[in-house]
Amino acid sequence: MTRNYRLSLVGFGNVGKAFAKLLLRKEKELASRYGLSVTVTGITTGTHGQAINPEGLHLPAVFETLESGKRLNTLSTTDTPADTIAFIDACPADFLFETTPVNPQTGQPAIKYLQTALQKGMHVITANKGPVVHGYQELTALAAKQGVRFLFESAVMDGAPVFALFRQPLVGANLHGFEGILNSCTNLLLEMMENGQSLEEAIDYGKSIGITETDPSNDIDGWDAAIKVAALVTVLMGIPLKPQQVDRAGIRGLTQAMIESAKVAGERWKLVCMAERLGNQVNASVAPQRVGPESPLYSVNGTSSFCQFKLDVLPGLGILECDPGPETTAYGLLADFLNILEVA
Amino acid sequence: MTRNYRLSLVGFGNVGKAFAKLLLRKEKELASRYGLSVTVTGITTGTHGQAINPEGLHLPAVFETLESGKRLNTLSTTDTPADTIAFIDACPADFLFETTPVNPQTGQPAIKYLQTALQKGMHVITANKGPVVHGYQELTALAAKQGVRFLFESAVMDGAPVFALFRQPLVGANLHGFEGILNSCTNLLLEMMENGQSLEEAIDYGKSIGITETDPSNDIDGWDAAIKVAALVTVLMGIPLKPQQVDRAGIRGLTQAMIESAKVAGERWKLVCMAERLGNQVNASVAPQRVGPESPLYSVNGTSSFCQFKLDVLPGLGILECDPGPETTAYGLLADFLNILEVA
Repeated sequence: MTRNYRLSLVGFGNVGKAFAKLLLRKEKELASRYGLSVTVTGITTGTHGQAINPEGLHLPAVFETLESGKRLNTLSTTDTPADTIAFIDACPADFLFETTPVNPQTGQPAIKYLQTALQKGMHVITANKGPVVHGYQELTALAAKQGVRFLFESAVMDGAPVFALFRQPLVGANLHGFEGILNSCTNLLLEMMENGQSLEEAIDYGKSIGITETDPSNDIDGWDAAIKVAALVTVLMGIPLKPQQVDRAGIRGLTQAMIESAKVAGERWKLVCMAERLGNQVNASVAPQRVGPESPLYSVNGTSSFCQFKLDVLPGLGILECDPGPETTAYGLLADFLNILEVA
Repeated sequence: MTRNYRLSLVGFGNVGKAFAKLLLRKEKELASRYGLSVTVTGITTGTHGQAINPEGLHLPAVFETLESGKRLNTLSTTDTPADTIAFIDACPADFLFETTPVNPQTGQPAIKYLQTALQKGMHVITANKGPVVHGYQELTALAAKQGVRFLFESAVMDGAPVFALFRQPLVGANLHGFEGILNSCTNLLLEMMENGQSLEEAIDYGKSIGITETDPSNDIDGWDAAIKVAALVTVLMGIPLKPQQVDRAGIRGLTQAMIESAKVAGERWKLVCMAERLGNQVNASVAPQRVGPESPLYSVNGTSSFCQFKLDVLPGLGILECDPGPETTAYGLLADFLNILEVA
């Protein structure tokens, strides 16, 4: 007997699309291994419309529609809701997957989307750091009250299981602090500077391959890294921390001469994230640092990321994620889904 | 309300002692965080006797007795069982913790100890690679039949949660292969050779600090690494593999000249473990390799270990464990215990 679950997808950019493709690719495996199937009952996109079909949207048709430049609304079997909140209200689903763009300052409107879904009794899963940093306590409490779950594995280190690691695997452990490289974009830019490009040239190339955003300051000035530090501290150390409270220096001050001089000395500049518990407080920072080959940070290449945790029971436990992409982020969403269903 | 569990400890060397100390250190935390307490009802040692007290042994008294050179039997409230099997039969317990020395060839007598405990309806937890490599299927099936669990987090990479990682955190993922450094002893010896010592000098030093065994061939010839590869393949890839089936080369052939020549080139010799799925088969090896600073293996220093996994959903996920000791192995035992109780 196969149990079926209805999914509502809010956001359908690279990650949302990769998730839909992963569901197609894993369809048979989910049925044979866990006895479950999924039906995507609704998708809402930023600029390509939305569709709801309580009987289930045909995902290949969704991709065809988008590829032919049409709006998703042509696939909808219901009236078009006025906005995303109305979409969430109108779409019958057991799980909401939220992958809209991050709002580093407030986490909105994603927090409102998740609240709406939780209030309707849906489990909610997000790849968005915003709601984690700005709404973790409230959303977790609301989920508990509603008897559902709020998970967000993909919000930090893409699909690498950093939050799940601290549930069962590190049960009974206490986190004292961590150090790592959490922003893929700057890590790639620094590597390109090592190969002789200026920061500006590297940024232009990053934009051309979609790694760097139109306004690169979110990455370059360390905001994305600071948000990830705040998310890890808030969730894993139990100390609510806002990105603004992280001592933050980006890579704008790094010159080609500095990169070259490190290289000559056998070292590399890395944008290093750090947090350390001090009683009930935490000392957290993001700053460029020179690291040598004896450090595990040295070999973190390209868009890979790494974080080393210091625990009361383990002096150093590192997690390395190599060559992530939308597919790995999509896996984090799937893992959250399967963990809510407690299939493992 | 506090739930109490009775523990029987078979083996009380460095790891067993560290586990008892961890139980003492975490006593209040286990009560306040999870509402549970433990009673050690029996301990059997290799050469210092054994003790059973159904009301619970007083752990500080156990340490005092051993430190004063006395046998544990002085603390026992029951007759002395004839052997370890009789001890397991006689000691009333809910959990058996097995930390006796590894038998790489057969996994015995540890497998028999675990079978005896499982047949009595106890959960069993081991830090011993032997039963994992030589008895995983049988012991897992027996545990399932008895409605209890068989866990062994500490058998590979000490307390780093490598097996737990593949339960909930990597749910729905399929492992294609892995590469890593799994033998701490040879990793330290190679580092000492980089610092100018001969292999023989390094081994002598290793013996003096307790890292190298009296007969070092288990480490030097790659057997320990091969057993760990076999354990990971057997459990995580679902392909039963014996250490003898791992292509194995140790570090005996490495000369100081080879180490030095790598160093001059900015590289290091590492004893690299590898496994790769080929259909229903697996290609597995242990062999010394030169690695450069662009590899995450390069910065694995001293007795640290590292393993990078290749999955269908994540191209590369690495786990690094730094500076392990008996305390970290002890934590793996505690994590298994808490996971069996499903407190997280």
